Amino acid sequence: MTSELTQVQVSLGDRSYPIFIGAGTFQQVDIASHISGTKVLIVTNETVAPLYLEMLKHQLSEKQVDTVVLADGEQYKNLDTLNLIFDQLIGSHHDRKTTLIALGGGVVGDMTGFAAASYQRGVPFIQIPTTLLAQVDSSVGGKTAVNHAMGKNMIGAFYQPQAVIIDTNTLATLPDREFHAGLAEVIKYGLIVDADFFQWLESNIDNLLQRNEQALAYAIELSCKSKARVVAEDETEQGIRAILNLGHTFGHAIETFQGYKQWIHGEAVAAGMVMAAALSVTVGDLAVEDLHRIKHLLHRCSLPIAPPLDMAVDDFMTLMVRDKKVLDGQLRLVLLKRLGEACVTDQFSIDHLNRVLIDACSPL
Amino acid sequence: MTSELTQVQVSLGDRSYPIFIGAGTFQQVDIASHISGTKVLIVTNETVAPLYLEMLKHQLSEKQVDTVVLADGEQYKNLDTLNLIFDQLIGSHHDRKTTLIALGGGVVGDMTGFAAASYQRGVPFIQIPTTLLAQVDSSVGGKTAVNHAMGKNMIGAFYQPQAVIIDTNTLATLPDREFHAGLAEVIKYGLIVDADFFQWLESNIDNLLQRNEQALAYAIELSCKSKARVVAEDETEQGIRAILNLGHTFGHAIETFQGYKQWIHGEAVAAGMVMAAALSVTVGDLAVEDLHRIKHLLHRCSLPIAPPLDMAVDDFMTLMVRDKKVLDGQLRLVLLKRLGEACVTDQFSIDHLNRVLIDACSPL
Repeated sequence: MTSELTQVQVSLGDRSYPIFIGAGTFQQVDIASHISGTKVLIVTNETVAPLYLEMLKHQLSEKQVDTVVLADGEQYKNLDTLNLIFDQLIGSHHDRKTTLIALGGGVVGDMTGFAAASYQRGVPFIQIPTTLLAQVDSSVGGKTAVNHAMGKNMIGAFYQPQAVIIDTNTLATLPDREFHAGLAEVIKYGLIVDADFFQWLESNIDNLLQRNEQALAYAIELSCKSKARVVAEDETEQGIRAILNLGHTFGHAIETFQGYKQWIHGEAVAAGMVMAAALSVTVGDLAVEDLHRIKHLLHRCSLPIAPPLDMAVDDFMTLMVRDKKVLDGQLRLVLLKRLGEACVTDQFSIDHLNRVLIDACSPL
Repeated sequence: MTSELTQVQVSLGDRSYPIFIGAGTFQQVDIASHISGTKVLIVTNETVAPLYLEMLKHQLSEKQVDTVVLADGEQYKNLDTLNLIFDQLIGSHHDRKTTLIALGGGVVGDMTGFAAASYQRGVPFIQIPTTLLAQVDSSVGGKTAVNHAMGKNMIGAFYQPQAVIIDTNTLATLPDREFHAGLAEVIKYGLIVDADFFQWLESNIDNLLQRNEQALAYAIELSCKSKARVVAEDETEQGIRAILNLGHTFGHAIETFQGYKQWIHGEAVAAGMVMAAALSVTVGDLAVEDLHRIKHLLHRCSLPIAPPLDMAVDDFMTLMVRDKKVLDGQLRLVLLKRLGEACVTDQFSIDHLNRVLIDACSPL
């Protein structure tokens, strides 16, 4: 199945790049035209490789193509796995003109991006995200990283790709759980910058859950546009870009608590967004009925709307102070002024936060 | 002992920074004024810590100062050691406003710089180089990296410090072998961009070898000025900056062959510069008498002027094709057009290179 291609531009001066969105972009986009050298290293994982690796290699038949197939899972997003990519690059004599291609979900994209940022102090790379989460979030905007045992995404770089190629056909094979996790990030854009889109999502959630092609392409396009706009304004997260992390400080605490082994990223973010929204209500900004709309929409997507039962208030407190948004010891969070408008703030009392955590961590 | 401070500026737009040079800069420069946040992590090694760590901490008494003391040696410049720095940063809750300080030689500086480049996607750092080699070369210009088992400096970033603070008093305690290795890089600047400086070095080598304070300060200042000029022209080594690597492709092959465990960097570079100069003579550029002057001056500094006896031509060939200056499979080297002028070129035949390697690798 192919459809008309949509192109969204990320405007960052000489680091600008296009995002191609559509059904069948793998066939329609001339991937090789975004590669300047003669060598390519495709990084993918054992789940994605059997599905799309051959198709991609076929597209690049005029290049020297090497591949690294990684184990699948957030628990492998670390310096040890990164080193497997370097092993292959050096072992196969890839030089500074090589191009890395990330074929897979967010983990593959984040690691490949950081490998590209740091191999020989920087080589070009292309993102080909194959999960909804990677398509609407991690493949766009140049955040690359690996995790540290003590914290998520602690080691990385801001490093922009040459192009992002999103083929919505890849979503047909995506397991429900991952698909739903991706919807959490789609919903996030409605919450932080686009109330109309949130309302559209409420109206079209059945279509999306049935993976209707038109609905998906529209949701991805609007998500990428929102992200591109925010990133163009603040590439290295000096300020406004942090709103893209709505729910992530809570969510990262959940993922770290579980050692990245239970909930997947979008699930943790869903619960985290509910907690951020609850805090926004507590400080007097968000209307309580909007909190209910958010919970309802996330619940429709089979996403968690409360933290794991075994997490206590103290677990959150301990883990959240390690967050990257902590500045000189002051915890800052992304909260909602209203539906469709977010801000980064430290204007909440520990008492407010405590109340929300106690509520959230109480067994029903 | 204190003397007048010299300041050299590295001009890189909003990434510009000062280099302070003199005897007693530790006392004279207000280091804290180059630190914006409240937290500092000093990275040093077990050799340097007993000498200067307390003095530096005293200078920073109004900050929260944590320290990491690494094992000393090039063989520890790898991802595992880098992770020790991240452990300390995360364990002590350092956030995006922390400043890293590299107190030590090139290994400490390169690793600390890369840790700063990649911790939370980038935090500020300051270089306080305590070896001659680090003072005239690695602390200036923003090249940061760690080694990979299969190649030197393969993983890193271009990332500029906030300031470089060079206290020539630290050279008093430097072992002869390291001091001589530093002189190799000083001599390099004469070879690549400044024939007058080369001649000054020939005339003043006795003073330098006796570590005369004035001679040292002058040699360091001229070295830093040369480096700053080249770096300002080509920060990320798209072209001219590569001349700073005279002798390094040969030298890296030597270091990799020895597993970084025998010759130190400046020694390998000295032998490498002789090989590059010999090739420059072979292709018909450099005068043979200038090759002899180069060998003589390096020899005066007790530096090797031929590769290790156990290295063969094939060892060089195998290891050199992994060099970062290989582009799309074509080996490029830094050669001398004449004394004081270098170029990056692939204009030499394999036959030329072979002849030089055979000559160099023959037992005398």
